[in-house]
Amino acid sequence: MKINDNFFMKLAIDEAWKYQFISFPNPAVGCVVVKGESEILAIEAHKEAGQAHAEVNALKAAFLKYYPNDILKTKSSSKQIHEYLIKNHNGFFNDCKVYVTLEPCNHEGKTPACANLLKELKPQKVIVAHEDLNNIAKGGCETLKNVNIDIDIGCMKKEAYELLYPFLKWNSGTFIFYKMAQTLNGSIDGSISSNSAKAYVHTLRDKIDLMLIGGNTVRTDMPTLDARYIAGRAPDVFIYSKNKVFDTNIPLFKIPNRKVHISDDLFKLLDYKFVMVEGTYNLLDTLKDRLDYIVLLVNPKIRNGANALNEIDIDFEIVHENYIGEEKIMFLKRKS
Amino acid sequence: MKINDNFFMKLAIDEAWKYQFISFPNPAVGCVVVKGESEILAIEAHKEAGQAHAEVNALKAAFLKYYPNDILKTKSSSKQIHEYLIKNHNGFFNDCKVYVTLEPCNHEGKTPACANLLKELKPQKVIVAHEDLNNIAKGGCETLKNVNIDIDIGCMKKEAYELLYPFLKWNSGTFIFYKMAQTLNGSIDGSISSNSAKAYVHTLRDKIDLMLIGGNTVRTDMPTLDARYIAGRAPDVFIYSKNKVFDTNIPLFKIPNRKVHISDDLFKLLDYKFVMVEGTYNLLDTLKDRLDYIVLLVNPKIRNGANALNEIDIDFEIVHENYIGEEKIMFLKRKS
Ligand SMILES: [Zn+2]
Ligand SMILES: [Zn+2]
Repeated sequence: MKINDNFFMKLAIDEAWKYQFISFPNPAVGCVVVKGESEILAIEAHKEAGQAHAEVNALKAAFLKYYPNDILKTKSSSKQIHEYLIKNHNGFFNDCKVYVTLEPCNHEGKTPACANLLKELKPQKVIVAHEDLNNIAKGGCETLKNVNIDIDIGCMKKEAYELLYPFLKWNSGTFIFYKMAQTLNGSIDGSISSNSAKAYVHTLRDKIDLMLIGGNTVRTDMPTLDARYIAGRAPDVFIYSKNKVFDTNIPLFKIPNRKVHISDDLFKLLDYKFVMVEGTYNLLDTLKDRLDYIVLLVNPKIRNGANALNEIDIDFEIVHENYIGEEKIMFLKRKS
Repeated sequence: MKINDNFFMKLAIDEAWKYQFISFPNPAVGCVVVKGESEILAIEAHKEAGQAHAEVNALKAAFLKYYPNDILKTKSSSKQIHEYLIKNHNGFFNDCKVYVTLEPCNHEGKTPACANLLKELKPQKVIVAHEDLNNIAKGGCETLKNVNIDIDIGCMKKEAYELLYPFLKWNSGTFIFYKMAQTLNGSIDGSISSNSAKAYVHTLRDKIDLMLIGGNTVRTDMPTLDARYIAGRAPDVFIYSKNKVFDTNIPLFKIPNRKVHISDDLFKLLDYKFVMVEGTYNLLDTLKDRLDYIVLLVNPKIRNGANALNEIDIDFEIVHENYIGEEKIMFLKRKS
């Protein structure tokens, strides 16, 4: 296997995917710091909105790899890390290459601009997979070029685009994904997911703007649709149903500060940025032309059971996959 | 993400999996060479029986990373590389750590012993994931300890065991895997696999000892069951059938130097080391207690179609997964 720019960028991309959706409304971004030719010092990502960007986490981890007891380890806010590194880097990064999946941000938002930090630390080279398309944050590469830092743009651009895609979509409209759980052979009957997979679904519920669910599922399962496994926030709910009458004792109606829409007009979805569809497979047909992703949890067992997807033809691309405990999670992008 | 022994060993394990089954009858083995604390110089594997072992490939690649034009690059046989490195290493590896998924071999076989090479090169440390259980080859760690090379055994042992498992099985008996292809939702109707997936299946056919197939499939599909896509060897075939009469014009009977067994007694399988089951899903039920793996090719599309696995309950562990082009390949080990 070749140890080259693609290898290091792939590490950054895979690290970023661990926080895909979790970083909402921010993009998932990963960063790797390499000293000299191939001394790998840090593989980090942006984890959550308001927290440090990928570059800041990676530059901090890289510095601590050499100086594990430096006082930097006590600094956790992005601003503190910025200030500390600018003051104390002492040329440490001058022989480093910084791989980042997205062009470093160029404007001071909740956190100081990464381009500014890199400008001061002067790494030997910054390798960027995908340019920033956001008018407010872009221009980071220009800033770095202006101080003669060597810049390379486009390494693993396709993979970085797929990583960025949910952000691009919710940033300019609505990103809609279907959450499914099945066995290896596609059976969807009964309780399929492990507790860790359920906790992951609750983590997603805590992040999304809106959950879409079918009326029949609500009537049959009488769900709560909250994020209690992780003590998270319960999202707003959209019940897709022609019949607007529901038993108000169904737990989902009892969550404080939750909006519940009941409608058969899916157009209202587009008022939201980040929508998860759960619980009923017949919505797949209705939604299929607007769907961005299926997030598929696969439990590796073969089981007797109905496969409700059989009536639909859709093609996907596997843009990423990972594990949740012993189960697989696949991020499938609809081919349009 | 922590950059530690586990991180480097995982790179070695993943590299080795690329050659799982292909290295038959040898085990799949991976090796990573790191200079100093974390300067990653090589990620290599054993690719095919008779070719250089993982350690030799990795040590060569590591040396060439520093001296890309060294004459070493013209050496390809294991023996040549051994001899050249022993003569010319000049202490290059003294500050290196060598991560290897399996204890270095200790006996001169088709290729010289890796333990002997490492003994001469004297790396700072050798990290071994799994000890060698083979009575002939084992003792590599002992050899290295005797010359005071620092040895660590057991890093990612569980993952290394899963990597080694097919070898342990075929080395002491018979390793049997089922090759399946399906869509995302478990449909097995029609032509599912891409050309690259088909070529992979032919690569497997070139390696296995025996292919098992059901009599009805032979009658219906009239297959050739060779490895023509890769100009490979056609394996022996076992047709599982009570009715022993077949049209001898079926192409599979016309392959020179192929043995074809027709029987309903699966006990004969155990005369072979490495068996692939193809083509018919009703054999799964018959075989399920003897089955080691399912190798599942998943095409990321949803399609209307029969799911013939519905009648069987089996639990699996996903021991590895990878891509073949845009399709997924999952290595599923039956839980016993
Ligand atoms: Zn930033
Ligand atoms: Zn060896």
